[in-house]
Amino acid sequence: MSGPAGYRLGELAERCGGEVVGDAGVVISQVAPLHRAGPREIGFVSRAAFREQLTGTRAGAVIIPPELRERCGIPRIVTADPYACFARVSALLNPPAPVVPGVHPTALIDEGASVAPGARVGAGARIGRGASIGDATLVAEGCSVGEDVRIGAGCRLHPGVVIYPGCVLGDRVVAHAGAVIGADGFGFAPSKQGWIKIPQIGRVVIGDNVEIGANTTIDRGTMDDTVIEEGVILDNQIQVGHNCRIGAFTAIAGCAGIAGSTRIGKRCLIGGAAMIGGHLEIADDVVISGASAVPGTVDKAGQYTSIYPLAPHREWLRTTAQVKQIEKLAERVRQLEQKLADIEGSEQ
Amino acid sequence: MSGPAGYRLGELAERCGGEVVGDAGVVISQVAPLHRAGPREIGFVSRAAFREQLTGTRAGAVIIPPELRERCGIPRIVTADPYACFARVSALLNPPAPVVPGVHPTALIDEGASVAPGARVGAGARIGRGASIGDATLVAEGCSVGEDVRIGAGCRLHPGVVIYPGCVLGDRVVAHAGAVIGADGFGFAPSKQGWIKIPQIGRVVIGDNVEIGANTTIDRGTMDDTVIEEGVILDNQIQVGHNCRIGAFTAIAGCAGIAGSTRIGKRCLIGGAAMIGGHLEIADDVVISGASAVPGTVDKAGQYTSIYPLAPHREWLRTTAQVKQIEKLAERVRQLEQKLADIEGSEQ
Amino acid sequence: MSGPAGYRLGELAERCGGEVVGDAGVVISQVAPLHRAGPREIGFVSRAAFREQLTGTRAGAVIIPPELRERCGIPRIVTADPYACFARVSALLNPPAPVVPGVHPTALIDEGASVAPGARVGAGARIGRGASIGDATLVAEGCSVGEDVRIGAGCRLHPGVVIYPGCVLGDRVVAHAGAVIGADGFGFAPSKQGWIKIPQIGRVVIGDNVEIGANTTIDRGTMDDTVIEEGVILDNQIQVGHNCRIGAFTAIAGCAGIAGSTRIGKRCLIGGAAMIGGHLEIADDVVISGASAVPGTVDKAGQYTSIYPLAPHREWLRTTAQVKQIEKLAERVRQLEQKLADIEGSEQ
Repeated sequence: MSGPAGYRLGELAERCGGEVVGDAGVVISQVAPLHRAGPREIGFVSRAAFREQLTGTRAGAVIIPPELRERCGIPRIVTADPYACFARVSALLNPPAPVVPGVHPTALIDEGASVAPGARVGAGARIGRGASIGDATLVAEGCSVGEDVRIGAGCRLHPGVVIYPGCVLGDRVVAHAGAVIGADGFGFAPSKQGWIKIPQIGRVVIGDNVEIGANTTIDRGTMDDTVIEEGVILDNQIQVGHNCRIGAFTAIAGCAGIAGSTRIGKRCLIGGAAMIGGHLEIADDVVISGASAVPGTVDKAGQYTSIYPLAPHREWLRTTAQVKQIEKLAERVRQLEQKLADIEGSEQ
Repeated sequence: MSGPAGYRLGELAERCGGEVVGDAGVVISQVAPLHRAGPREIGFVSRAAFREQLTGTRAGAVIIPPELRERCGIPRIVTADPYACFARVSALLNPPAPVVPGVHPTALIDEGASVAPGARVGAGARIGRGASIGDATLVAEGCSVGEDVRIGAGCRLHPGVVIYPGCVLGDRVVAHAGAVIGADGFGFAPSKQGWIKIPQIGRVVIGDNVEIGANTTIDRGTMDDTVIEEGVILDNQIQVGHNCRIGAFTAIAGCAGIAGSTRIGKRCLIGGAAMIGGHLEIADDVVISGASAVPGTVDKAGQYTSIYPLAPHREWLRTTAQVKQIEKLAERVRQLEQKLADIEGSEQ
Repeated sequence: MSGPAGYRLGELAERCGGEVVGDAGVVISQVAPLHRAGPREIGFVSRAAFREQLTGTRAGAVIIPPELRERCGIPRIVTADPYACFARVSALLNPPAPVVPGVHPTALIDEGASVAPGARVGAGARIGRGASIGDATLVAEGCSVGEDVRIGAGCRLHPGVVIYPGCVLGDRVVAHAGAVIGADGFGFAPSKQGWIKIPQIGRVVIGDNVEIGANTTIDRGTMDDTVIEEGVILDNQIQVGHNCRIGAFTAIAGCAGIAGSTRIGKRCLIGGAAMIGGHLEIADDVVISGASAVPGTVDKAGQYTSIYPLAPHREWLRTTAQVKQIEKLAERVRQLEQKLADIEGSEQ
């Protein structure tokens, strides 16, 4: 007995996983942080260590880990992974607005383009010759889809996304506003007459269930394709250079840059503003800390970091002056060791 | 007796502050750098230390600090803050183009949207259902304003700005081309089936007098709002993650990134390309140097820096090799200290 | 005897430089990496050290350096600079789509704007009053060209490019999707009432043969112009601040940021995500490594770097703890030196 106005807790657990303890009939219509959740809202505690978040909450229900099963007086879903359960519950309560099929009268569908009957093309969007748009896909206002682009089903291109000719998107791909997919890679040969542009004749090929953040750019390949495998999530303002391959389920946070021809493995976590050089290999399951620079290949799983320590400016000046002299410092230590060895030798 | 062609120096001082020394009747029509200013132009010297900028200038007038009052032979405005005075004078001489009210015939105003009679909506712009646009606000060509967005009076959205549904802008907010406000925050829960997207149901709420640079992105909150307080100025290509709060009058330079759920205080200065981690607190009046990474909370005002020293590449290679060995170097120093202590002990 | 379907190898060498060894009549229709090139495709080996790339190739021809002249059994172009020759060959085989002259019926050409008969203006693009578009220039769909902008001949503005009023582009300038040229520089004077915006009345002036990447931003000058000299190539997501000058033929890789009023010399190579501070001078022929921060002037050609070494996270924690203590370490070494000098003194 639930409706658009909400779901009973039992239904949420059934659909999202977990065991209900307490009143399974309480109706929940939204998620909220526990400190301000009301009686029709559900919050979560991701780990037992955060149990104090439960104190004084007025939430109608809560999602908790097994350790807190008996530490909680309100209706609850007990699950080994409260965060994933919360994500599923919130997705159920907040489905994306449905895609209303149709082509806006001001949209431009070039000859030879194909738009599935269940797709929507917004105002002023342009679908190039030979392009195809899958079922239930939204191409919002002001998007530009180039010639021969293939876009799968259930995708959402937010306003102003540009897809250059020939690129391929799988199913359920989301691209946020201002994302640019398939612009020319940065390929130029030096010559005495200046830079000679190398035509970028590869494509960008994007797998299913990929999310691409606002103003993120993914360049087309020089001769081969740039590939984003299934389930990759890219935050805003990311640059992916030509010929890169990003492995399945890798997550890259905002402002990161991946230079050309680099291959990143599967299930990697690349922190915000991390900068990864070109022509490298990053193994599966590598974690790069935010703001770290990666100038060489990383061939083993694990977390890697390269951040110079933050300090009050005057302290930084002093520390940095010493760092610049570290080679001399090491030499002085070597001389000390030598002298001490001499002294020890002469004493024997 | 001034007109569109200029202002007398006396009028400029009256409106912008400062005391006139010399001919208050000279007519000034534009600002210019002193080295190339002509007789109808005004320049400035920000500090007494830069007094040589006055040498040989042909400017009609100049704005100077009190220390230079008698070091200058041309008509002048003397003020304790020449730079602010110059800013006011230039703003007076270069007012923004007036907003000509009207909705372009190719603009799309959805049902239930409200556009103030004094506002302008440019060609091909779209105003979503339930959105409201305040008086004397410009929404330039190609902008997309989502459902239920509220935009105050006197704002300027340059071409191609995208505001996602539900976001709120105060009065006199400027957003430059390509800015994206309210895209989904980067919230995903890991699971065995891949990343589960967490709906981002918060908004972006922007105070009065905020300036947002070209291609800057500000993500909507997960459950609560992302908040930009009044008077904040953001340069180009900045990323502000979900749930952040940026305190009033804070300035952030280009390419900086603020990861999610971080709170930055009031009147902070964040340098270009600074990268601030997530879930941090930055106190009021903190200055972060350009290109610095901030991985932890900064709870005290002052300037902070984290830049590895730039060096010729070969020198960098040698220095860096030593830095990587610094733990061993410290151990060698410890051993030397021990040996010396032994020697000193045996000598006693 | 070549046609749209390809060129004979002899013709390629005639047009692109180099000497043919072997059958000059083989017809080549595309470039490809040697490992997958077929009989109508041509690959290249940039340096003799990479000669193993020739092993087993089925390419119809190859471009090689003189050292490999006799190490290769297939038809070949021998040239001192295989990479530049390859670029020319690929450009010949992959010419950009021709610009079909015409103004799309949904484009908006303001009164007083001038569009050359050979230019193309795409759907929904807007050309402001007084602007001029040169011959054979493409302004793609959704672009915004401001008042009084001057764009030369043979340029390509990809979808959604925004050029603010008054800016100037030379001939054969390429701007990729989402690039923003001429937004206000980040100029504000602090005051007790908050930031006072300084009108940015300079322009952006771009020379011939400049390429500008997707979502790159170049700000207009405060009083003087921001200048990009001829032949400069800018990758994606770059920020160029107001009043900068970038010297001819300089290349800047993705995500780099150049703060305001900095002058970069000619033929520099600025690596990806490099961050260059404001009011600096970078000499001609300087190379800045990717991810390096440049806080001061660089007055001598050469390569410069500032990257903190990447390490496994736990190792990084230990190294960094020592770096923070380096001043104390240096002091301990000084004390050791003193003690040893004392011991040596007492022994004499």
